[in-house]
Amino acid sequence: MRILVIGGGAAGMSAASWARRKLPSAEITVLERTNIISHAPCGVPYYVGGLFSDPGLLQAYDVSFFKEKRNIDVYTGSEVLELDVKSRYADAVVGGVRRRLEFDGLVIATGARPKRLNLVGGPPVIYVHHPAEAESVKKQLEAVNEVAIVGGGVLGVEMAEQLSELGKRVHLVHRGPHLMSRDLDRDLGERLTRLVASSGVDVRLGETVVEASGRELRLSSGASLRADAVVAAVGVEPNVDIVRGQLRLGPHGAIEVDDRLSAGYDYVFAAGDVIEHRNLVTGGPDWKPLAPIANKTGLIAGVNVAGGDKRFPGVLGDIVTKFNGVVFGRVGLNEAEAARAGIRYVTSSITTKSRARYYPGGGEVTVKLLADEATGRIIGGQVAGPEEVVGRLGVIAAAIQSKMTAEDLFFVEIGYHPSSGRAWDPIVLAARQLMRI
Amino acid sequence: MRILVIGGGAAGMSAASWARRKLPSAEITVLERTNIISHAPCGVPYYVGGLFSDPGLLQAYDVSFFKEKRNIDVYTGSEVLELDVKSRYADAVVGGVRRRLEFDGLVIATGARPKRLNLVGGPPVIYVHHPAEAESVKKQLEAVNEVAIVGGGVLGVEMAEQLSELGKRVHLVHRGPHLMSRDLDRDLGERLTRLVASSGVDVRLGETVVEASGRELRLSSGASLRADAVVAAVGVEPNVDIVRGQLRLGPHGAIEVDDRLSAGYDYVFAAGDVIEHRNLVTGGPDWKPLAPIANKTGLIAGVNVAGGDKRFPGVLGDIVTKFNGVVFGRVGLNEAEAARAGIRYVTSSITTKSRARYYPGGGEVTVKLLADEATGRIIGGQVAGPEEVVGRLGVIAAAIQSKMTAEDLFFVEIGYHPSSGRAWDPIVLAARQLMRI
Repeated sequence: MRILVIGGGAAGMSAASWARRKLPSAEITVLERTNIISHAPCGVPYYVGGLFSDPGLLQAYDVSFFKEKRNIDVYTGSEVLELDVKSRYADAVVGGVRRRLEFDGLVIATGARPKRLNLVGGPPVIYVHHPAEAESVKKQLEAVNEVAIVGGGVLGVEMAEQLSELGKRVHLVHRGPHLMSRDLDRDLGERLTRLVASSGVDVRLGETVVEASGRELRLSSGASLRADAVVAAVGVEPNVDIVRGQLRLGPHGAIEVDDRLSAGYDYVFAAGDVIEHRNLVTGGPDWKPLAPIANKTGLIAGVNVAGGDKRFPGVLGDIVTKFNGVVFGRVGLNEAEAARAGIRYVTSSITTKSRARYYPGGGEVTVKLLADEATGRIIGGQVAGPEEVVGRLGVIAAAIQSKMTAEDLFFVEIGYHPSSGRAWDPIVLAARQLMRI
Repeated sequence: MRILVIGGGAAGMSAASWARRKLPSAEITVLERTNIISHAPCGVPYYVGGLFSDPGLLQAYDVSFFKEKRNIDVYTGSEVLELDVKSRYADAVVGGVRRRLEFDGLVIATGARPKRLNLVGGPPVIYVHHPAEAESVKKQLEAVNEVAIVGGGVLGVEMAEQLSELGKRVHLVHRGPHLMSRDLDRDLGERLTRLVASSGVDVRLGETVVEASGRELRLSSGASLRADAVVAAVGVEPNVDIVRGQLRLGPHGAIEVDDRLSAGYDYVFAAGDVIEHRNLVTGGPDWKPLAPIANKTGLIAGVNVAGGDKRFPGVLGDIVTKFNGVVFGRVGLNEAEAARAGIRYVTSSITTKSRARYYPGGGEVTVKLLADEATGRIIGGQVAGPEEVVGRLGVIAAAIQSKMTAEDLFFVEIGYHPSSGRAWDPIVLAARQLMRI
């Protein structure tokens, strides 16, 4: 059996590896457009900021690892020119030569790409996304003094932190009413915004860039600012060019798949940022281009393209960022999303010290929960604090995925040590606020 | 209605507060033997070690808070001399005067006390337990140079860390084959033991103290060591003296309660370390004297003594300690407990860096899972690492409490940020090892 995987990122390499485990005899080929595979875009801001100096660390495993340990043929620098899903072949440039690759099973894992900023005549626009471009992005940004970041989501916030650390003058222009407004509700979002603004970043809310000329950017309010470079951080979109017209796309422009991640043909699967997801709370379509989901959907697609039968249950969206020592994250629905889904919800929020009151260090931690008013079920959560944020979000994720009510979550036994928690964990207290006692 | 609460620790004050919420008109009285209430024994090692200097911080709230904010009469220094459960009165010394207190509802929250070390003729034996004794314990230990700690559980490990930090020569004598042998399996337990031994603590395993004379302690193997003081850390036992012969006790010597925490009479409830627990995995009796459980059972007992009807589902035992920057914990069953419960189990273990490989800081994190071989259900977990340990244990706790299989846990969406996690979280990887793919 010949299996072709298009895209060598997290999802593609996960798929190829699991297809190999499932089917030791298959011929497995991966085509990757850039020069690196198994890459981690999440690390690019920290490479730019100088937290580490070897860009090779942005690649988890290299081509020879997959060739030698897993008998997978990986071709980097290989662009697919044409894909014919029905006739089961792809024409691609492989090692500089145009070749036709026929396949019996296909995994599409072409990921996402940054949305473009439509800005002409101003400072150069820099896209921070693919690790393959990390070195050139770093060089460009090192050469400038004043930077405007457009977009105050996770990437914008992380770039603002790192560029400030490098001593740049940073403007952060965000369309929403507070930073990370697609993910965080106003309470936590305003805490993040205050933190970023108090670090010296010039935060401009409710603004878009409407025009650029020389070093000058004019904003929607009429205000203006100057920058030597613009960092575009206005989101990503699924990279579906090679399948357009061949596979059905969903409301987010990504590939529609069933719960086996099959994309309309029994030999075609898709995984990672290029697929539509099903939201576990609403049951409706969603799109969460996040690395842990790419890894898991890669596994499912790889197992199934090799003849297995695994199901992917769906997504919550557990997204985390960090600014100056405070970690912010959310999982499940936020207030706006719950309202859009027509769910009547109740909320609770607890802010406390992150450690026992007598134990040195730590800081303020906030846990916010959303529950369905009718059923009491937990449908979302947000956490901000200096430590134990990822784990607490995971507890809330487990609660949502197992359909716990607030009372069920109250009884989850969260451990306690004075150095890293509270005898009444803030999750437990927030759940208690929502219980009917 | 007159409600009497005996014991002003975490469980007792939680019970009194919730009884007040439920029944604004009740007369609520709390009797506490020592001079502080709402106390936190978990902090005592850190007070002794000098991490903070105000012992008042070991008390979460003081008597006047409960009097003024919650209209609860709290009497400290009040020992109960006789309790007659059937006739509904307690004779106690209250403010130095013997008084009879009649009640309509009773909550027993007398907690646990350290087990005694039977050691005569040797160095003074010091018990580290109640915050009321924290100052005298600290003074006694400050005055000595060489200390033998007997018992290598959580308290022994924490005292070893703190006394070493103070520059004492520390011997840690433990009966089991590795430290924390009642909680951790050999793999994680040996990591803890190596960490403690490499810090300069003289760890003696498989040993008990059989005899003492002057500064000399003779151990069961025949070896001996010297110490100016002995710290007894051989565990705790339920403090049931005042109810013995009146209420039924369980196999751990604690008070038997139903799931409403009622103790044989419809007006008598018990909470905290003094009650038998039901283990959520085995369904059998268990005893977990831990602060978060005391808080929650206090709430249940308080609500129910005031006429409510809340149920306590049971316990897992989510216990955490820390030594020199590494946090160790477990939740649910460990291997020995699963074997004793007659459960055929499988295990998996993942050790990885705690952060993205390129992100500075962090350290090695290990996640171990146990699953029931027949059903695939997660029945226990152990985690060790420098960060995000409490949260990860909470994720495993939620998985066990909601009866997740390894595959369910694999799909729990654990968030990822390079600063505090991995795109493949070690919990997800450990769950994947147990999945049938």
